[in-house]
Amino acid sequence: MYTIGVDLGGTNIAIGLCDENLNMVEKDSVPTLPDRDGELIIKDMAALAKRLIDKHGISVSDIAYVGIAAPGSINSKEGVVEYSNNLPFNNFPIAAIFRKFLPIEKIYLDNDANAAALGEALAGSAKGAEFAVMITLGTGVGGGVILNGRIFSGGINASGTELGHTVIVADGRQCSCGRRGCWEAYSSATALTNMTKEKMTELKIKGIPSLLFDEAEAAGKVSARTAFAAKERGDEYGAKLVDDYVRYLAEGVTNMINIFQPEVLCIGGGVSNAGDALIKPLITLVNSEQYTRKNSLKTRIVTATLGNDAGIIGAAGLGR
Amino acid sequence: MYTIGVDLGGTNIAIGLCDENLNMVEKDSVPTLPDRDGELIIKDMAALAKRLIDKHGISVSDIAYVGIAAPGSINSKEGVVEYSNNLPFNNFPIAAIFRKFLPIEKIYLDNDANAAALGEALAGSAKGAEFAVMITLGTGVGGGVILNGRIFSGGINASGTELGHTVIVADGRQCSCGRRGCWEAYSSATALTNMTKEKMTELKIKGIPSLLFDEAEAAGKVSARTAFAAKERGDEYGAKLVDDYVRYLAEGVTNMINIFQPEVLCIGGGVSNAGDALIKPLITLVNSEQYTRKNSLKTRIVTATLGNDAGIIGAAGLGR
Repeated sequence: MYTIGVDLGGTNIAIGLCDENLNMVEKDSVPTLPDRDGELIIKDMAALAKRLIDKHGISVSDIAYVGIAAPGSINSKEGVVEYSNNLPFNNFPIAAIFRKFLPIEKIYLDNDANAAALGEALAGSAKGAEFAVMITLGTGVGGGVILNGRIFSGGINASGTELGHTVIVADGRQCSCGRRGCWEAYSSATALTNMTKEKMTELKIKGIPSLLFDEAEAAGKVSARTAFAAKERGDEYGAKLVDDYVRYLAEGVTNMINIFQPEVLCIGGGVSNAGDALIKPLITLVNSEQYTRKNSLKTRIVTATLGNDAGIIGAAGLGR
Repeated sequence: MYTIGVDLGGTNIAIGLCDENLNMVEKDSVPTLPDRDGELIIKDMAALAKRLIDKHGISVSDIAYVGIAAPGSINSKEGVVEYSNNLPFNNFPIAAIFRKFLPIEKIYLDNDANAAALGEALAGSAKGAEFAVMITLGTGVGGGVILNGRIFSGGINASGTELGHTVIVADGRQCSCGRRGCWEAYSSATALTNMTKEKMTELKIKGIPSLLFDEAEAAGKVSARTAFAAKERGDEYGAKLVDDYVRYLAEGVTNMINIFQPEVLCIGGGVSNAGDALIKPLITLVNSEQYTRKNSLKTRIVTATLGNDAGIIGAAGLGR
């Protein structure tokens, strides 16, 4: 038997066909195009799943279940996305609608960040950890929590642990969730991109040169990489942006360590591609901030190893 | 059989002798005097426990176990206080030292906030809840988390969920833990007292009258009640202090709801004596801030009902 893991993001729908050992044997993606009707998104999702099944030369009856990882507040039991601020879903019965397009009975649904955490705990950087927290730095800041080896999705309706929507700067930057000063508004890839753009606008007005402009031009756009790349080449403004970014990230990471005391805290998502340039200063800051700082930090802080596949693999493992 | 519950605070050591139904049959307290050697504190604790046993006409062999609730990071398994910022304990083997003064084999140790949460979940405002968070607004901001009906003390060494030591204002007010901007630095009774004193100093310098002065004089000191009392009598500065206080409290409470999605979030500690004057505006703010605000808030926010006895009763229930 096989399982299908779906990672439904704000940008792409990524799907993997996995064997019984969670090895991905087929994988593909299509754009999400989030500004359209939700049902059309699920129709494309089901069509891609079917293409992967056909491509591998198996049939729908060979699929044990489909696991779907979606952003936002999820009611896993009912297969409903209760609320998502990056997709057009409000009390949206995603499992039921998926079945309209592809007749598979068992459909598991969980928060994308929870699924990524499960993926890392089943097959990645946190493999074997009973207590793990995964932070995904992408469009938003996702948080997934593994307690006693299982996803902890919150007490009521298992609607997701929204770690990114915890305020670290009261009255701070506007977050897409409506609050001001959420961790997500400082530590997502989107936030770093926005802060880089703001700095570049300021420098441009003042006529101050910076390698931020070279890097953005070379890449064809400003992204979360721009500041890291400019810093690496010695640019002081890139360095300041990265240092500020890591400082806010450390505030949130330290908060999570003070709350959960996990064995492993793994950092995934696009920004984690910066590797040691991100993780090393982060560990130094968290060490100096964590509550039991008089003792040494016991939590291992690592980059996620499954990369963008964590959500897919975790989704494919949801039925375990 | 009886159990003894000890609530070791920064100000007092409160002890209760409880029967098998967690009814407190004897209760007394002595000052902690935290600036002395830790062993002397435990000696006084054991002496008071012995006095309660004698007073009730039973003997040490009638005690099934002693439960101790202490502030800070606790290693429950080893009976060690790893670190406390309000008491002179650093890797302090409290259970072993207690036994030197009173020969009781079974001694359970947990974080004071965890014990209070367990007390409320066993016999108070969260009775019957499988998922509950208790926030204690006292000398510090304590957090206790009940998941699946049991204390969740964090993943590694069960060293306590330090909910109060999560930063809500990056680079904000200095916290006793070393970080800046912790929830505790804004929402503890100590914080409200300090903010009231600061405001009164400012008003005094400017020669501006306020009922804050009347209330402080009538009570003989500035406390967390001063601002609430002045607000109730229509004082604008008291009102501003309370409104700001509740706003920061709501930031932290909303963070905890977004993380844990508990059935019940109960507020205890000295400040909770303000009752509806605290809870009503808090609920309004949290409703407008919580992540799934498009749906209604599912978490019940209530004042703790066991009052100062929550820690004692929870401690007496630690061995269950």
